[in-house]
Amino acid sequence: MVKQDRAARTRQSLIRAAAEVFAREGFAPASLTAISRGAGVSNGALHFHFESKKSLARAVEEEAVQAVRDITGKALDGGGGGLRTLMDTTRELMGRLVDDIVVRAGFELGGDPARGEESLLRSEWQRWVEDMLRRAEEEGELAEGVSPGDALPAIMAATVGFEMLGAEDKSWLSEETIDGFWELVLPGLAGVREQPVPAGPPSMGASGHRVVRPAQPTD
Amino acid sequence: MVKQDRAARTRQSLIRAAAEVFAREGFAPASLTAISRGAGVSNGALHFHFESKKSLARAVEEEAVQAVRDITGKALDGGGGGLRTLMDTTRELMGRLVDDIVVRAGFELGGDPARGEESLLRSEWQRWVEDMLRRAEEEGELAEGVSPGDALPAIMAATVGFEMLGAEDKSWLSEETIDGFWELVLPGLAGVREQPVPAGPPSMGASGHRVVRPAQPTD
Repeated sequence: MVKQDRAARTRQSLIRAAAEVFAREGFAPASLTAISRGAGVSNGALHFHFESKKSLARAVEEEAVQAVRDITGKALDGGGGGLRTLMDTTRELMGRLVDDIVVRAGFELGGDPARGEESLLRSEWQRWVEDMLRRAEEEGELAEGVSPGDALPAIMAATVGFEMLGAEDKSWLSEETIDGFWELVLPGLAGVREQPVPAGPPSMGASGHRVVRPAQPTD
Repeated sequence: MVKQDRAARTRQSLIRAAAEVFAREGFAPASLTAISRGAGVSNGALHFHFESKKSLARAVEEEAVQAVRDITGKALDGGGGGLRTLMDTTRELMGRLVDDIVVRAGFELGGDPARGEESLLRSEWQRWVEDMLRRAEEEGELAEGVSPGDALPAIMAATVGFEMLGAEDKSWLSEETIDGFWELVLPGLAGVREQPVPAGPPSMGASGHRVVRPAQPTD
């Protein structure tokens, strides 16, 4: 039992140390020796847990996917509408990229051509954004004539871009920057100038909202 | 003279071959032998022109910067307003990422942690976007309350994101996708639903435009 605990702890230390080295250097130059040293274990211990650098990278990515699922799951529990949930989750995820080296490395590994694998994390995130946009559409939150498919590319590109830019300068991931993105996009996306309140479609015009598109035609 | 021509052509072939290998594999795994083979020259010829992989990467980046300057210079000659010029340039640049391996590799090298250098191309692009947003502001094209600094992060993040996503799937770089981004952003950025015509600020309401913000206060 104690032995199992220790093995699990060693595995966690290796994943964290690997995330640090991958995020700093990229996949190809990352050395397994640097990773085992970072985790405070021997090369033998590393190879007991992970058969290759590739499988270590995959473990980092899987742990990052789990972290993103925790964020999106918690956001859903909030009970807000699709857009509100999407905005809150984006802010939360970008903050997590600053604080959590495993999430950061997970995203960076996904975009690393040296690894030659599809990004688990990016497809997970894209699925979630699509789901929330569809939910927003069903709830009548999207501006007239805007479909989830119209909005998805801009939101995906912006979040991937903030993640990339944030690797060099954390200010790209600040709440202020992310909220600024939503402020710019909301008039086109939802037909409102300010963030919609948790319940109620934008055309209901919560105080301070400017409804810039006509309500759905009644015919 | 003929010898100089041949040297210049060899240098160009090496830059192009390097761009292909860097874009496909990333900086760290790229082998100089694969690059000289791709250029159809000997390793010795490669080393005559470039002292290291780093200097070859720098040459690819510099050539990509030149290509971006050609695009932005030509766009300025078009004589449209700041927003129009910015939109046209974005579409052109994203198309260029599909067609021109040197421009693609230039952007990818800039974001490669293995190289450990600041991205020349990204700073060049950011400066240009800032200039165009300032010009749009001076020309009264931005919606009231929106400054160039408010709009810059979203536009930078989206273009960097499209570039990253486009490395795996070219449809992220299509005109349709890029125009869709601008359609989503224009209501918040310029207070109009459609792209402004080349001359005249959006508040002049070219046919089909919906002006969603009040004109500048007259006091």
